[in-house]
Amino acid sequence: MIERCQKLGVQLRPHMKTHKTLECADIMTGGSQRCIVVSTLAEACFYADHGYDDILYAYSIPFDKVERCAALSERLDLFQILLDHPDALEQLRKRPLKDGRQWHVWLKLDCGNGRAGVLHSEPGALKLAEAIAKTEGVELTGVYAHCGNTYYCTGVEQIQAVAQETTKLTLQFMEKLRAGGITCKSSIGSTPSCSHPVKDMAQLSEVHPGNYVFYDVQQSMIGSCCMEDVAVRVLTRVIGHCPHRNQLLIDCGWAGISLDGAGKLPTGYAVIEGHPNLKLLSMTQEHGRVEPISGQLDYSKYPLGSLLTLIPYHSCATAVMHPVYHVHSKGRLVGKWTPTRGW
Amino acid sequence: MIERCQKLGVQLRPHMKTHKTLECADIMTGGSQRCIVVSTLAEACFYADHGYDDILYAYSIPFDKVERCAALSERLDLFQILLDHPDALEQLRKRPLKDGRQWHVWLKLDCGNGRAGVLHSEPGALKLAEAIAKTEGVELTGVYAHCGNTYYCTGVEQIQAVAQETTKLTLQFMEKLRAGGITCKSSIGSTPSCSHPVKDMAQLSEVHPGNYVFYDVQQSMIGSCCMEDVAVRVLTRVIGHCPHRNQLLIDCGWAGISLDGAGKLPTGYAVIEGHPNLKLLSMTQEHGRVEPISGQLDYSKYPLGSLLTLIPYHSCATAVMHPVYHVHSKGRLVGKWTPTRGW
Repeated sequence: MIERCQKLGVQLRPHMKTHKTLECADIMTGGSQRCIVVSTLAEACFYADHGYDDILYAYSIPFDKVERCAALSERLDLFQILLDHPDALEQLRKRPLKDGRQWHVWLKLDCGNGRAGVLHSEPGALKLAEAIAKTEGVELTGVYAHCGNTYYCTGVEQIQAVAQETTKLTLQFMEKLRAGGITCKSSIGSTPSCSHPVKDMAQLSEVHPGNYVFYDVQQSMIGSCCMEDVAVRVLTRVIGHCPHRNQLLIDCGWAGISLDGAGKLPTGYAVIEGHPNLKLLSMTQEHGRVEPISGQLDYSKYPLGSLLTLIPYHSCATAVMHPVYHVHSKGRLVGKWTPTRGW
Repeated sequence: MIERCQKLGVQLRPHMKTHKTLECADIMTGGSQRCIVVSTLAEACFYADHGYDDILYAYSIPFDKVERCAALSERLDLFQILLDHPDALEQLRKRPLKDGRQWHVWLKLDCGNGRAGVLHSEPGALKLAEAIAKTEGVELTGVYAHCGNTYYCTGVEQIQAVAQETTKLTLQFMEKLRAGGITCKSSIGSTPSCSHPVKDMAQLSEVHPGNYVFYDVQQSMIGSCCMEDVAVRVLTRVIGHCPHRNQLLIDCGWAGISLDGAGKLPTGYAVIEGHPNLKLLSMTQEHGRVEPISGQLDYSKYPLGSLLTLIPYHSCATAVMHPVYHVHSKGRLVGKWTPTRGW
């Protein structure tokens, strides 16, 4: 992703929310420990505590977290927040930063994603950007759009159509701002769009993908990656034979892989590597029921104690279930990485 | 639950898997710190490290965990494991415990639950019980059946029918064992069955419910409890107004409440306390989309920064997402409880 963004000529601001570890952050920032984006204040504090700076907390600022954000803004060189409503700006105005520091604020723009952000087409969007820029003690750092609607795409063509549309709408918005005398950064992102960027994305200041650090089955179905690119697995053991139900039991339930992906895959909640005829049918907290898509199970192939390898549908959802990641290379364990958790 | 089991005349062995904290364990054991059941070895070690004993690891023993189970068996007065296959017994036979200690083994029986356990009706069940009893260095401590099929019930009558059937089948199995000269304990359990026990459960040695410590919306729908009995909530803030979609955004996504309950409730992934017309429609990692079941949202009722209270569909799944529980009484925070995690 670093190479791709360098070639494209756009700054990569990798998102930490998928992994939440120092080790992946080091890889994603190429060791710079600068220019990252996070989804929670717990992540922001974790990275700040470990020498990271230029951190964007890309989440419509919850009002109860203004004071913690102020503390980070006063402590780091460049802590940045995000908002999409005049009431949030009012919260910042009421809490001026010490030593003449500025709140660094991105405006969240909704360019068709349909989650957070002020609608790009709404007159209020431009007004809010202007209000941020004009407010004392506050700086309009940039305009931020998340093209999460790429997750509904299948194939590069559809991904690039959404990437193009989001880029176009963001750049049009930047143009309107410039016409009003306001200049600031711009950023769009999502793993699908940044895996297959369109040329016009070079006109943006930044992009902010995150999931690509692991990828997953969902990304392979969208067309962001191949299955060979998926870097995360859940290892599980066969703990039960149920010939009367034509099923195996494995020691991975939803506590180990999450319930994400329900109904999305012919192989159930995951892909079972090397066993295309097996389906992870259902799970309880610590048990998974596995059955063949067709035919009868040959139990001699799956002795009790043998391992199966699950490729997660959604690595963000799976990673969050684990207090530690076991890192391997060429079949050898080479480390344990510990993510931060909470909010 | 303690009082109910005392009245019934059966030993309560509470399950720790829902909460995984010392504080709830203290409440559930009435301070005895004895006679608990756990779903993971991480829980077993956590409780052993904090003075607990008489711990049953009620999970068909994964073969890679035999050595850790041996260590706990050699360290505690009474560490107990569970199996449902002759291959597992063979694993124990190959690892005799030190100092003449015995492996304390429960046989897992499937009395219609359809997950782990040897089928009660299968001749192999009795043979396996006999093999456990006969194996040197191994003691048949009990017969364990989980009536998780109560989760498909609605109302006390259905719950009690399953409880009765599971009890009957377990007691019939105990009778067959006795006829072969084998006596040991018996246990059945699930929160629905133990919330509405049938008289015959008094003939069992133990029961092992767990979820009742919190209860949840699912349990109220099954008929185990009233909504007033549910002790766990996720507090969330309104962080976005989306009038063009007739939606609110809240700062709780699946990282805060889990994806359990999808499609089960008219109010979406949770019940929003005091707002029966609101639905938690969809979630991403840190965002929830809330919309009215009917009509238009009155945004003045839900200002940015205001709190909403989510009652989880499945408290086991919600609790596992949280690194700490904030404990409150009469509107005041009175403590923070930290669960153990991992395996």
